[in-house]
Amino acid sequence: MNTIFVTGAAGFIGSHLVDRLLADGKRVVGYDNFSTGQREFLESALANPKFKLIEGDCLDLSALTRAVAGCDFVFHLAANADVRFGLDHPHKDFQQNAVATFNVLEAMRASDVKRIAFSSTGSVYGEAEIIPTPENHPFPVQTSLYAASKLAGEGFIHAYCEGYGFEGYIFRFVSILGERYTHGHVIDFYKQLLAHADHLKVLGDGTQRKSYLYIGDCLEAMLHVINGATAKQAKHHVATYNLGTDEYVEVNNSVKYICRALGLRPRLEYTGGNKGWVGDNPFIFLDTKKIRATSWQTTLTIEQSILRTLQWLQKNQWVLQRR
Amino acid sequence: MNTIFVTGAAGFIGSHLVDRLLADGKRVVGYDNFSTGQREFLESALANPKFKLIEGDCLDLSALTRAVAGCDFVFHLAANADVRFGLDHPHKDFQQNAVATFNVLEAMRASDVKRIAFSSTGSVYGEAEIIPTPENHPFPVQTSLYAASKLAGEGFIHAYCEGYGFEGYIFRFVSILGERYTHGHVIDFYKQLLAHADHLKVLGDGTQRKSYLYIGDCLEAMLHVINGATAKQAKHHVATYNLGTDEYVEVNNSVKYICRALGLRPRLEYTGGNKGWVGDNPFIFLDTKKIRATSWQTTLTIEQSILRTLQWLQKNQWVLQRR
Repeated sequence: MNTIFVTGAAGFIGSHLVDRLLADGKRVVGYDNFSTGQREFLESALANPKFKLIEGDCLDLSALTRAVAGCDFVFHLAANADVRFGLDHPHKDFQQNAVATFNVLEAMRASDVKRIAFSSTGSVYGEAEIIPTPENHPFPVQTSLYAASKLAGEGFIHAYCEGYGFEGYIFRFVSILGERYTHGHVIDFYKQLLAHADHLKVLGDGTQRKSYLYIGDCLEAMLHVINGATAKQAKHHVATYNLGTDEYVEVNNSVKYICRALGLRPRLEYTGGNKGWVGDNPFIFLDTKKIRATSWQTTLTIEQSILRTLQWLQKNQWVLQRR
Repeated sequence: MNTIFVTGAAGFIGSHLVDRLLADGKRVVGYDNFSTGQREFLESALANPKFKLIEGDCLDLSALTRAVAGCDFVFHLAANADVRFGLDHPHKDFQQNAVATFNVLEAMRASDVKRIAFSSTGSVYGEAEIIPTPENHPFPVQTSLYAASKLAGEGFIHAYCEGYGFEGYIFRFVSILGERYTHGHVIDFYKQLLAHADHLKVLGDGTQRKSYLYIGDCLEAMLHVINGATAKQAKHHVATYNLGTDEYVEVNNSVKYICRALGLRPRLEYTGGNKGWVGDNPFIFLDTKKIRATSWQTTLTIEQSILRTLQWLQKNQWVLQRR
């Protein structure tokens, strides 16, 4: 890894990764269409001469092919991460996750770049039968367009590894939290409580059990695996890792942490049911034995990650106005 | 099932299905772009007033949406079935399998048609760890673009079942043989032996073990499952079945059956290696307990299926000149 191409470079995970790679002295080419990315997240990167930003879309194959040329590793993080509203616009998941990933692979093939890391999701296990859920879980049923479109991406990466000698790293994330995270329940609860401190709408019945991982721990895990180049040793040159902590929290606990930190005691209004929305998974808890066997470990608990996210939002209120 | 939409209606499996459904007194709308389909296969269907043929492409979403309107069940069989040469044109698998399947789902959603059967493949298990391979095999690694693109289709069908109340039937086929089959090793060997009766080139070392199923048995299995409407009872309204026989044959046996039937003793020239091509699976044998538990059973052995295929080719030499 000398010159690294990062799709979704202005996004939550992408921008942290760019900063981290630059801190390591790498050259980084960031690619983003700024549909959800934030230019502010790349402020310090843009001041670094080793960083080059290319504004472009992963659906534009020729731009993508030109952009990736000369790089030797790709982190494909660009995605439609809007999991909850997938059913409102199925084309979005299909285009921005499945087609975009295929395009990234084609751009790499055309430019002879053969190493790729991909941000997949623990949601590909659907409503897992085995919890904590290991990487070799029985062939699951997809319960969301988001996960189906990520699964499509995984499959094509496999096929490129087998057919074209690529080396692939697939990371199935739980929800990632931390500075710059502008989706999900922390910002949702915070926004609500800023608007009305006395009540809080909670999707589902609050008993959904969710897993989270701190962004810093997520980055270290990926780099740890890639620097160990485990895919090279694998039979099909693909290494797949669950990334998560060794714990989970109930939505109700998350509510408690956030309200306590804000010094509020709102009335809780549950929308009811054991799912937040259609395709929501009431219990996500990944088996992380495989990644922990590499000696990687988390530095923050879920509670600490939630609080970090909240503190960052409190200090960066400008993001509350975005999208 | 009253009015049934069949994509790939002029193809091998599609045209047999059309004939079978018409024989049952159903109305059938066939959709085909004739990229590999043969008009001759629909000769008898076209004489039936209950059959309507629409020439169109699954990549043309608006034509597809108009065509599917008014139907109440979709068999999505259109595909790029050219497994072996996938690496020469990865776009083909992606477009004709992944994108086409997504379009079929979108056309159905727009036209409020909610029941779909899909021809997937046993290849989605990659190089299976468990043989015979059950439907709930551990999350596999894709070893071909063909299988990756079929897996993408499966995942989106799942998501539409969960998100939009669709009812899905996914059939993971072994190779299907029989009348009208114009791909694969039987036609390849036959063509070679017509050109030069004294020698035969065999891909790999001939020890690859493959599974086949007779087209008639394949159709009965699908209709058997759908008429039992098992997907409706399943948690996520998706039923997945392996379709195959309870046996497999070595490529060398297949060579023997064909040569014996033709009365030839060619010199065998092996290309070597335990695979026919990159992404070829040296051992395919599906566990078919699930489909057999429905009381469906095969009527022909693999040897009989191979010979039926050969006999049909001998009587229909015109297909040897096509594509």
